[in-house]
Amino acid sequence: MTDRLKQLAFQVGGTSPAPHPFDPLTTTEIDTAVSIVRKEHGPLNFNAVTLWEPRKEEMMAWLADPERAPRPLRAADVVAIAPGGKVYDGVVDLKAQKIVEWKHTPNVQPLITMEDLQEVEHVVRKDPKVIEQCGILGIPKEEMHKVYCDPWTIGYDERFGSGVRLQQALMYYRPHVDDSQYTYPLDFCPIFNAETKQIIHIDIPNVRRPISRAPPNNYHPASVEAEGGFRTDIKPIHITQPDGVSFNINGRTIDWQNWGIHVGFNYREGIVLNNITFNDKGVVRPVFYRLSLAEMVVPYGNPEHPHQRKHAFDLGEYGGGYMTNSLSLGCDCKGAIHYMDAAFVNRAGASTVVKNAICIHEEDAGILFKHTDFRDESVIVTRGRKLIISHIFTAANYEYCVYWIFHQDGTIQLDIKLTGILNTYAMNPGEDTHGWGTEVYPGVNAHNHQHLFCMRIDANVDGPNNTVFQVDAVRGEGAVGSPENPYGNAFYAKKTKFTTPRQAMSDYDGSTSRTWDIANTNKLNEYSKRPVSYKLVSREVPPLLPKEGSLVWKRAGFARHAVHVTKYSDDQIHPAGRHVPQTSGEPSVGIPQWIEQAGETCSIDNTDIVLWHTFGLTHFPAPEDYPIMPAEPMTVLLRPRHFFKRNPVLDVPPSYARTPSQVAAGKDVCACKKNDGSSVLV
Amino acid sequence: MTDRLKQLAFQVGGTSPAPHPFDPLTTTEIDTAVSIVRKEHGPLNFNAVTLWEPRKEEMMAWLADPERAPRPLRAADVVAIAPGGKVYDGVVDLKAQKIVEWKHTPNVQPLITMEDLQEVEHVVRKDPKVIEQCGILGIPKEEMHKVYCDPWTIGYDERFGSGVRLQQALMYYRPHVDDSQYTYPLDFCPIFNAETKQIIHIDIPNVRRPISRAPPNNYHPASVEAEGGFRTDIKPIHITQPDGVSFNINGRTIDWQNWGIHVGFNYREGIVLNNITFNDKGVVRPVFYRLSLAEMVVPYGNPEHPHQRKHAFDLGEYGGGYMTNSLSLGCDCKGAIHYMDAAFVNRAGASTVVKNAICIHEEDAGILFKHTDFRDESVIVTRGRKLIISHIFTAANYEYCVYWIFHQDGTIQLDIKLTGILNTYAMNPGEDTHGWGTEVYPGVNAHNHQHLFCMRIDANVDGPNNTVFQVDAVRGEGAVGSPENPYGNAFYAKKTKFTTPRQAMSDYDGSTSRTWDIANTNKLNEYSKRPVSYKLVSREVPPLLPKEGSLVWKRAGFARHAVHVTKYSDDQIHPAGRHVPQTSGEPSVGIPQWIEQAGETCSIDNTDIVLWHTFGLTHFPAPEDYPIMPAEPMTVLLRPRHFFKRNPVLDVPPSYARTPSQVAAGKDVCACKKNDGSSVLV
Repeated sequence: MTDRLKQLAFQVGGTSPAPHPFDPLTTTEIDTAVSIVRKEHGPLNFNAVTLWEPRKEEMMAWLADPERAPRPLRAADVVAIAPGGKVYDGVVDLKAQKIVEWKHTPNVQPLITMEDLQEVEHVVRKDPKVIEQCGILGIPKEEMHKVYCDPWTIGYDERFGSGVRLQQALMYYRPHVDDSQYTYPLDFCPIFNAETKQIIHIDIPNVRRPISRAPPNNYHPASVEAEGGFRTDIKPIHITQPDGVSFNINGRTIDWQNWGIHVGFNYREGIVLNNITFNDKGVVRPVFYRLSLAEMVVPYGNPEHPHQRKHAFDLGEYGGGYMTNSLSLGCDCKGAIHYMDAAFVNRAGASTVVKNAICIHEEDAGILFKHTDFRDESVIVTRGRKLIISHIFTAANYEYCVYWIFHQDGTIQLDIKLTGILNTYAMNPGEDTHGWGTEVYPGVNAHNHQHLFCMRIDANVDGPNNTVFQVDAVRGEGAVGSPENPYGNAFYAKKTKFTTPRQAMSDYDGSTSRTWDIANTNKLNEYSKRPVSYKLVSREVPPLLPKEGSLVWKRAGFARHAVHVTKYSDDQIHPAGRHVPQTSGEPSVGIPQWIEQAGETCSIDNTDIVLWHTFGLTHFPAPEDYPIMPAEPMTVLLRPRHFFKRNPVLDVPPSYARTPSQVAAGKDVCACKKNDGSSVLV
Repeated sequence: MTDRLKQLAFQVGGTSPAPHPFDPLTTTEIDTAVSIVRKEHGPLNFNAVTLWEPRKEEMMAWLADPERAPRPLRAADVVAIAPGGKVYDGVVDLKAQKIVEWKHTPNVQPLITMEDLQEVEHVVRKDPKVIEQCGILGIPKEEMHKVYCDPWTIGYDERFGSGVRLQQALMYYRPHVDDSQYTYPLDFCPIFNAETKQIIHIDIPNVRRPISRAPPNNYHPASVEAEGGFRTDIKPIHITQPDGVSFNINGRTIDWQNWGIHVGFNYREGIVLNNITFNDKGVVRPVFYRLSLAEMVVPYGNPEHPHQRKHAFDLGEYGGGYMTNSLSLGCDCKGAIHYMDAAFVNRAGASTVVKNAICIHEEDAGILFKHTDFRDESVIVTRGRKLIISHIFTAANYEYCVYWIFHQDGTIQLDIKLTGILNTYAMNPGEDTHGWGTEVYPGVNAHNHQHLFCMRIDANVDGPNNTVFQVDAVRGEGAVGSPENPYGNAFYAKKTKFTTPRQAMSDYDGSTSRTWDIANTNKLNEYSKRPVSYKLVSREVPPLLPKEGSLVWKRAGFARHAVHVTKYSDDQIHPAGRHVPQTSGEPSVGIPQWIEQAGETCSIDNTDIVLWHTFGLTHFPAPEDYPIMPAEPMTVLLRPRHFFKRNPVLDVPPSYARTPSQVAAGKDVCACKKNDGSSVLV
């Protein structure tokens, strides 16, 4: 029962108080929106019913004075597909109970839902041409129940265009139902028409690759037991919080260690953090209006057709929310956990819930600060704590674990751990991978790929009017021996102000340890006389490796640069466009289009801006990544610089402290309250 | 008592079994070495008595067959200073009880010990010229007991050369004994002669900066209480291991999760890890012969004299071991801790001990791997564990927390956290920092600086004969639309073999996500057919910002490139030379000299090599770093690539697992042993 109490799972179906304007739609609201749409427009397949986010101007007014300002419009953003494949985008006013916008959007394909994905496998198993192909590879037709596929949106294939809703089926085989199918990739690729539920084409390579006869390569317990069993030498570590957690939650607003954070969630981005503030000695200072992982792309590096189609936009094409795991098994986080559920719509228009979609918990963060005076061993050592808001989503083979981490010192850290299973393709014994992939197991070719994430940073650093500076660590002027640099040791932070979106397209430069400051130039730090700011520190920033003009380059415009900056617009949330599947990239939608449209004269100096940051990694697989990948982490930091007058964590109770006068007086005691459960050895 | 038992503090004074050849000298051995030297050479000041490390050839033979191979020579490496300042380097055979090497080394200065440091403050307080300078700044002579200094080695000053042992005193003032003196820097810099114990010169700036009248800026508990008190909303987190730790220690050799590691320690590098092996399903495979943090340099970026002298080599000039903290207060690590002590010699030749110098403990490492099948929610989730071997050293104002972290998947991670206090200099109200520093508090100028660490990687990847490759993620050949790259998406890992030390001088390239592979080209991975290897992944790799030809560039040759590779030599341990203080850099000693001497023909292809990696960060201070810095972390990884045939952690018991057949059968249970204390919500 105590555990149950600790979970305090937030009831998404609850109705009682009016939802916070940033709250995701409740199941009741989703049902309401669907019934209003149904009444007017008849039978539809629902693709998404999600919060139509409050317009920022209204919302800022309301946040400033929630008692008196008008409550922003509470509305549902609806995407539906009519029989015949016509796509509709609409907005439903939930208070007035009416449709305020409804339009047919031609030539787009909304994202592929889990339901869309799941039906493909049943179709391919029965398709005669697929059965024929399986036969060619050595799979008898009685074994078609052992054939599986990971259906991906087709991405874009010039032969089929954007008008018909298509998926490509990456094919696999399981000798036994519990075997990992990724060890048995099939070499052909059926194309599925989602409207007619038919296989309309099969891409067949010139060189055929019969089904591998290698033994299974599994990771499930029975296989580990059969290979010698589990290791028995790991002693348990217990992490407990006997007095409970250090945060308070009111609705979906968390109050923790001076931070205020509203935790939202949608089908697309997963976790959305809004109205992030820091209580600086009684003054609640805004920091970010909205933070999210807004898009990503995973281009694969094998140039052979049809592998160019493997460049999943996992958020825009499938939805990081839709694919989110239920964390109800309690194995993903440790300690005292607060969960939040997530509500969605299904294709039939009913609301659905993923229980425990978001995990909120604290962790010990090691040493927060320490100093010892070498003269007398007067010392202070203080331990830190962090708050972690996380979700995990499964994109077919891969798992993305997303951790939004708040530190006591004002730092926000986005950690992403990659795990799950490599995407694999068939190879013949002795076949040359030509360096485009790695044979991670006999017959298994894991192609080179990148994971490029786009973080949307809607800044609010002491107010909405912010300016971005590129900051490079550079050498001072003057040769060694010159009057201005006699010893040659001069260096400084060179700051370049971004004034227009075109100028602000900025790449990473490791040789200058490049960072970007989001500054409020209207407010100077009292001591340093520099603008208050948050610094984006990101070190895993590979360039988009598909070339300029390539399919991926055209479709994933957001990934062309590490940083883009745009003037805020309510409609600009999705870096690769609102509907991503089957975009051709001609023209490139999302960020490149917005920057093009903004023109030469658009100012991003001292105004409401959004910084889009693309980061990630390039993965050249190795056998140790298989049959399941040990988690590989990545980190992005947003650090306060010149934002505080002082270290803001001096009032965190130290584990141990003694001053010179206490040392002199022989007082060898802790001078303050303890904030942890460590055993002090005195 | 249980706590006491858990600590199991390793007795450095213990004698019973013969020490492992990698073990640091015991107190008894230090005392023995000193008495042998004393007998022959009379009165000396001892600078260091440390393990003369076994010659690698002998040691490899012994490791291969400890029963029959001859035990390597057990000897003490001695540095002593005779009256008059003559420096002696010697080696004492501890078994034969005799001096086997003893030589006068002219024109060098051994490092500055804590004893050397501590005597300067007493001298400056009494020096009439210092008293005069204090008076000019507004400190009456009755207050000279409130004057403090951080003595640094002079580094190198062309006016004084290398022949006389000198320190520069960075001057401060404390209004009250418990105030932080870094808020009251003084603008002049006395030079101290360690032989005569006199101030021989004072550097006085043209523009004078009277003592600041700003109120103190403190972090001690009384000051926090006076400013409103400590926060009271942090609930405790308890981390416990009721069944104890998961590692075994035999002497100083740790056995944990397939890893074998010998933990050494010396006055210079602090922790030294030797003979690192991984038990790969019964085969003990060597990975690294020796890992350490071998040198560092902290250049400051203010070009004005005498700030160019601020470029501390904290390891080579002061000793990361000598400056190490006793972690006996139990506030630095949490959980079940195993400590090791460290033994040194003092100036008078007596052995001394720092209790609990090394902390060894485990931590939960979050998700090790996870995968859910989207079809049926069959799932596996396994938590990881890490082993952390750490020490913390205080270099005057700064604290360096060094964590050697071992992961179950074969990854070795070096984390360094920077905390402590910024080096500060005086500034007048309204004075322009010219971008060379930041006013972090009224009258306090914290200069730009870099922390550049040199990690010494003595590789032994499946044997001593290794080869280093530079690996760049690059685009494939062929324009978009060409036959070889029709969709423009081709990319691959371009590998450049290093064949000579001169060719292997390699810089970081963020635009190619550059890494370096330490490979054994004699052994190919059975599946991938690529050489077994360990990959160096490091993303915080700024270039040395002091210019080519500058004082720092000359003295810190190791920092000119991110990677240097040399052929192994027993004598090449210290990247900036054996005796670092007051080297002029003409010629540059250490790595540049070794590479020069090795010549064009020296091969580093498939031989015993050492990789030297310089990494770190460039710090532009901000007010939130003051009066004490929240810890800033950095990470370097050594990751197995093509080293294992499979993910090596499949046998770690999962937290939860169910297979498709179990899902189909309605078995919703954990199929295996649990390895943690989390509460499973079923």
